[in-house]
Amino acid sequence: MNINLDTVAELTGGKIIKGDPSLVISGVASLLDATPSEASFLGNEKYFQDFLTTKAGLVLVPPQLPQYPEGTAFVEVENPSMAFNALVKHFHTSVQQFVPGIHPSASIDPSAKFNADKVQIFANVSIGPNVVIGDGAQIGANTVIYGGVKMGNDCKIHANVTIRERCELGNRVIIQPGAVIGADGFGFLMGPEGKYVGIDQVGIVELKDDVDVGANSCIDRARFGRTIIGEGTKIDNLVQIGHNVVVGKHCIIVAQTGIAGSSVIEDYCTIAAQVGIAGHLRIGKKAVVGAKTGVISSLEGGKMYWGMPASPYRDACRELSALKKLPALIKELKELKKTLFSEE
Amino acid sequence: MNINLDTVAELTGGKIIKGDPSLVISGVASLLDATPSEASFLGNEKYFQDFLTTKAGLVLVPPQLPQYPEGTAFVEVENPSMAFNALVKHFHTSVQQFVPGIHPSASIDPSAKFNADKVQIFANVSIGPNVVIGDGAQIGANTVIYGGVKMGNDCKIHANVTIRERCELGNRVIIQPGAVIGADGFGFLMGPEGKYVGIDQVGIVELKDDVDVGANSCIDRARFGRTIIGEGTKIDNLVQIGHNVVVGKHCIIVAQTGIAGSSVIEDYCTIAAQVGIAGHLRIGKKAVVGAKTGVISSLEGGKMYWGMPASPYRDACRELSALKKLPALIKELKELKKTLFSEE
Amino acid sequence: MNINLDTVAELTGGKIIKGDPSLVISGVASLLDATPSEASFLGNEKYFQDFLTTKAGLVLVPPQLPQYPEGTAFVEVENPSMAFNALVKHFHTSVQQFVPGIHPSASIDPSAKFNADKVQIFANVSIGPNVVIGDGAQIGANTVIYGGVKMGNDCKIHANVTIRERCELGNRVIIQPGAVIGADGFGFLMGPEGKYVGIDQVGIVELKDDVDVGANSCIDRARFGRTIIGEGTKIDNLVQIGHNVVVGKHCIIVAQTGIAGSSVIEDYCTIAAQVGIAGHLRIGKKAVVGAKTGVISSLEGGKMYWGMPASPYRDACRELSALKKLPALIKELKELKKTLFSEE
Repeated sequence: MNINLDTVAELTGGKIIKGDPSLVISGVASLLDATPSEASFLGNEKYFQDFLTTKAGLVLVPPQLPQYPEGTAFVEVENPSMAFNALVKHFHTSVQQFVPGIHPSASIDPSAKFNADKVQIFANVSIGPNVVIGDGAQIGANTVIYGGVKMGNDCKIHANVTIRERCELGNRVIIQPGAVIGADGFGFLMGPEGKYVGIDQVGIVELKDDVDVGANSCIDRARFGRTIIGEGTKIDNLVQIGHNVVVGKHCIIVAQTGIAGSSVIEDYCTIAAQVGIAGHLRIGKKAVVGAKTGVISSLEGGKMYWGMPASPYRDACRELSALKKLPALIKELKELKKTLFSEE
Repeated sequence: MNINLDTVAELTGGKIIKGDPSLVISGVASLLDATPSEASFLGNEKYFQDFLTTKAGLVLVPPQLPQYPEGTAFVEVENPSMAFNALVKHFHTSVQQFVPGIHPSASIDPSAKFNADKVQIFANVSIGPNVVIGDGAQIGANTVIYGGVKMGNDCKIHANVTIRERCELGNRVIIQPGAVIGADGFGFLMGPEGKYVGIDQVGIVELKDDVDVGANSCIDRARFGRTIIGEGTKIDNLVQIGHNVVVGKHCIIVAQTGIAGSSVIEDYCTIAAQVGIAGHLRIGKKAVVGAKTGVISSLEGGKMYWGMPASPYRDACRELSALKKLPALIKELKELKKTLFSEE
Repeated sequence: MNINLDTVAELTGGKIIKGDPSLVISGVASLLDATPSEASFLGNEKYFQDFLTTKAGLVLVPPQLPQYPEGTAFVEVENPSMAFNALVKHFHTSVQQFVPGIHPSASIDPSAKFNADKVQIFANVSIGPNVVIGDGAQIGANTVIYGGVKMGNDCKIHANVTIRERCELGNRVIIQPGAVIGADGFGFLMGPEGKYVGIDQVGIVELKDDVDVGANSCIDRARFGRTIIGEGTKIDNLVQIGHNVVVGKHCIIVAQTGIAGSSVIEDYCTIAAQVGIAGHLRIGKKAVVGAKTGVISSLEGGKMYWGMPASPYRDACRELSALKKLPALIKELKELKKTLFSEE
């Protein structure tokens, strides 16, 4: 598994800019932790000091750095983070390999359809009636799949996940532990006796191809019709997606963000952490919404937003920096009035 | 299952204001998705444009709209959303019907008390000693009920839920997947050696009749005594309720909100999403707290609040809109001073 | 189990300042709920009114109160909350005692190593290959432990927890239900075809001795290397800790807070609820970060911070109180200009 400098250059598509051809690399680590036989990478300028003092045998670097440490080999690449991933892949192989088989403790309804030679179902999984599972699926231990769920090929569902009735997953969907797909949407009407009455939530959730859902995230089923997460969209941990939300393709939704019912997020949006988006809104294509933003009206695509409530990013920065000057401003105005009127 | 216009009017308690009596409705959908054989509804003025261009065969409408599309039937009702629910109920029946029975893989302590002919217990459920379960209960797959828990009639506990020791549920309580009832409250004291020591959390959680708890929400047990969620209160997903909190009757608590230890929320409050309420506070009856609000002092009932920290709603709106003018204001003051003093 | 006044003084290390030696205490309750045969405590000045009207037979009190109610006994202690915990311990014993044994429904890989006479494994637990579990461990029902996990002595893992492959836990670690340790970090690179490609996450999570993790919290595994939670640190419910984060010793992280990838929280920090900390930052030793704060740059230790974005606490208070005056200020400036220029 050990590799030399030439192999590093080959695996990463990079150019050796300094280094002893006899150097042998046996693993990967961060700039701070790496030893003279390990490779690291400089992926963020914040770590430039760590770079200058690293003991790594080799560092993957972006082009044209102002300074380089002594005694270390360098391979120059376009994108050090992406290139490093190739080395990580070389040195690590996933512990949980795909080994087809059905654990005897799994409870599987006889009407469920899958090729038992081509799926891996772990201990204590519960699979309801009429579930359909494509080839290559891994279903983690203690996961519960309600009746009528359909799943494409090569899905990886981790442990303790819940997928409720009739939800549909495309191909290569990855769900981290504890996520809940298809819980009832949160809809109530105030009844005549002063008590809330639940609105039936008979729709489903559809996760398209290559969607990732983070640990303990929740995506609610539609009142009717579908809550949809578009192809290639990646959702982090503890995210809440309300009923009838439609998220487009290739979006990023970071941890602890919540999107209320019936809002639409168009393709290629990035929604940072702890954002709240109110219901029945539309976020345009390629919009970027900064962390902790509160979105209370629809946003045009292609722009960056921040603040509470959301403003165009530069306005939000100006407002927040103005707020820091406000206590002094109040004093200043008071003094000005005193100068003008009281001391005549 | 298909129904005609008269049956729609009957099911919804509405009045036919336009429509061919021979029209046959075969399902329900949104204004955008509905076909000429499906019914839809106009429940929010934001969808008025969709209404004008809908292909739905029938729309449930509120009284006195300024304009109506051609070629569609209308049934006028007081509350279109509530009326539509009657149609949804007609066309959909829950996949997971109540079918009494105990799955053989469930692990049930012999001291647990329930009528095996009147409850439905799914696969891999774990039920501890001295648990009491009322008739009509559904306990979802892989749910864990610790010792001493008591549950009234007709509760619906979904999959992968955890209910810890001695907690008490009333009748018709619904718990979505992944929720945790009765985890230890978060209480520590700094010990003499500079290490935190946990305070014993020996109380319980009590969920009164008709409480709903959302997916992956957490309600902590009391230090001693009870954390209480009042009758008819509905809690959304990923909500955190701290130890010894008391929530009144018929409250709504929206997703990702957190309520810290020992606070009291009186009856009929609405707490919107991502709100934080500090500990040991009291929120008065019928208060409404807007999304993302930070509550750091007690709030009088019957009013609406917003902002960080919480202000009366109209003040919060004024403050936020003033903030948007602040960068210009700073410039203005600077120019005024220049005019007054520098250019004489 | 009933105790008299002398025993209360002995258990709590307190001094009897008033009370009939024949008084018998049979339990503990809050000031509002306690009966004449129960003990309570005054731990927070907010409850002084409840104290003056309590029916408790005995109250643990801090030194030198301005006023005391009639008819109640008092034991004076340094820290009433801590002293009260001694009484709680006396009157309550945990329902779920440690009783070694392996439930027959547990699915345990034959390569897992533990002393079956010294651990308690509940129903439907799934334990993967090469797991190592120390003596005194309790593994709650339906918890899933992936292959290669190592756990020290006397850990208490509650129900429905997921611990993913190769993560390491020290001694006396407590994990509340539904928590997820070691889910994949949220890291993606935009691929050449406009699709996100996941970065391999091959590191682990390490929870040091005496760490507590709250219900449904998520701690992501490192991209490579380790996400580390330091000795004695206590994490509340629904907290998100990103990949490669390093939290020091004896920190407190309150509910619904999120810490993004690679940030470092030094020892003895307190991070209040719903805080967001961006990635690649450093929070200095003994820093205190107030609820809902947004941290977007590194913070010096030993200080208190609040606001969005984080300011030193007193500045944040001044800014927020200035904001409340801003609408009036705008009016004032307009009137001043009118006075100066228009009415001449």
